[in-house]
Amino acid sequence: MIARVPYNAPVGLPDARPMTYCVALVLDDGLVCASDSRSNAGVDQITVYRKMNILKPSDDRFFIIMTAGNLATTQQLMHWVHRDLSEKADTSLASVRYLFEAAEYIGDLNRRVQEMHEEALKAAGIDGQASLIVAGQVRGEVPNAFQVYPQGNYIRASRGTPYLQIGESKYGKPVLGRVADRHLSLNDAARLALVSMDAAQRSNLSVGPPFELVLYRRDSFEVHQHATFETETPLFASVRVAWHEELRQAFTRLPRFDWE
Amino acid sequence: MIARVPYNAPVGLPDARPMTYCVALVLDDGLVCASDSRSNAGVDQITVYRKMNILKPSDDRFFIIMTAGNLATTQQLMHWVHRDLSEKADTSLASVRYLFEAAEYIGDLNRRVQEMHEEALKAAGIDGQASLIVAGQVRGEVPNAFQVYPQGNYIRASRGTPYLQIGESKYGKPVLGRVADRHLSLNDAARLALVSMDAAQRSNLSVGPPFELVLYRRDSFEVHQHATFETETPLFASVRVAWHEELRQAFTRLPRFDWE
Repeated sequence: MIARVPYNAPVGLPDARPMTYCVALVLDDGLVCASDSRSNAGVDQITVYRKMNILKPSDDRFFIIMTAGNLATTQQLMHWVHRDLSEKADTSLASVRYLFEAAEYIGDLNRRVQEMHEEALKAAGIDGQASLIVAGQVRGEVPNAFQVYPQGNYIRASRGTPYLQIGESKYGKPVLGRVADRHLSLNDAARLALVSMDAAQRSNLSVGPPFELVLYRRDSFEVHQHATFETETPLFASVRVAWHEELRQAFTRLPRFDWE
Repeated sequence: MIARVPYNAPVGLPDARPMTYCVALVLDDGLVCASDSRSNAGVDQITVYRKMNILKPSDDRFFIIMTAGNLATTQQLMHWVHRDLSEKADTSLASVRYLFEAAEYIGDLNRRVQEMHEEALKAAGIDGQASLIVAGQVRGEVPNAFQVYPQGNYIRASRGTPYLQIGESKYGKPVLGRVADRHLSLNDAARLALVSMDAAQRSNLSVGPPFELVLYRRDSFEVHQHATFETETPLFASVRVAWHEELRQAFTRLPRFDWE
């Protein structure tokens, strides 16, 4: 595809949908999830909506659901998730026996919400699509994470690629590709998620604070750490300033060319 | 926009167009341009086409034109550029008085080539768009670079953002954003271009070797260095291996969280 060209990007309803960046890392020790909180419809209507949903329907299961795409779709989907739980529906996050069944359930809701509004949105030229990350653990399984597509199907993080991204994922991917590894500690993986988030927010106005970071320790079925922070919050600022300086220093140490 | 989701990406003609990555850096000392050479129509039809065109129509001007997008469009455009030069057309790279006029001229050709095939391509669902970078110097001006859009208009690199990218630009942007500066030496800027190219080719199959690197020294009106290399050519391999290792090391030195 041709790159999306700055300034000549078409301005109109189809592009005026919420943007975001979410990343999940699947580790031997557990899970790390990070998300931004910016929703925008164009550059002059920027608002804050959290993309990170933490659910613990019972003691044997723990879920983190992160959302990207059409905000109305993802909000309605989450309302349905909570309704299914409180009304003890036949299928809900309380009933699924495996994490992949949770991904299937979320994928089904995602498709149904979109279908409900498809005709009206299409007539208005609006894209109702949403992508989600369903991370967590159901007792008897190891922690894992699934990416749920707008079409309702899903993929799982793998040993070779122990991370998933939704939203504005490209800027934050190079550092993940270099460093991500299932053997990272939760704290190292959290630092990596912040560095990846920083790359996204530096390059894309639609990715913005506050940021949320959740660490989940394997077999605990509860939040290990949950931090919310602005760009200048010490938690984030120290990592991003250090990373920026490290990279600039590293650059000066690169090998010389033959002709120098 | 929702991220282009892996595996659920639509497969068909509209996406089956050549992809690439080109970057130009504008420096106090001159210019650095880097490009890949991969053209693909889907994953099973990958070929090598150079995207870097170096032209010196006379002693008082020097141009580097890099291309991304539909290969037929960019090839035809370059045929027209060379025809206008050899037939001494009223408007050509030999006649323009400023580099911005060269960008206007290339933009005009870009639009005309696309219009010529618009109906047939549209009927087939094929995108004929192309983006170009026109870098160089016309005597009396400092070296500069322009990005020419598919619509024929253009933007110039600036003091604050002394680089332009076309093609698969997002993966290679974070490091540019951190390090690019007009005061960099040509050789440092060339290292930066390679690191940016490496980020793009690691993450996107449509960006591939051989890579080309051109260094232009201000007021010389000729090539200073021109290197072509594969992924494993020492010129490139030493830089990319060193950068990978530096980043992994830098990551281990990031500050700890309060809770550690």
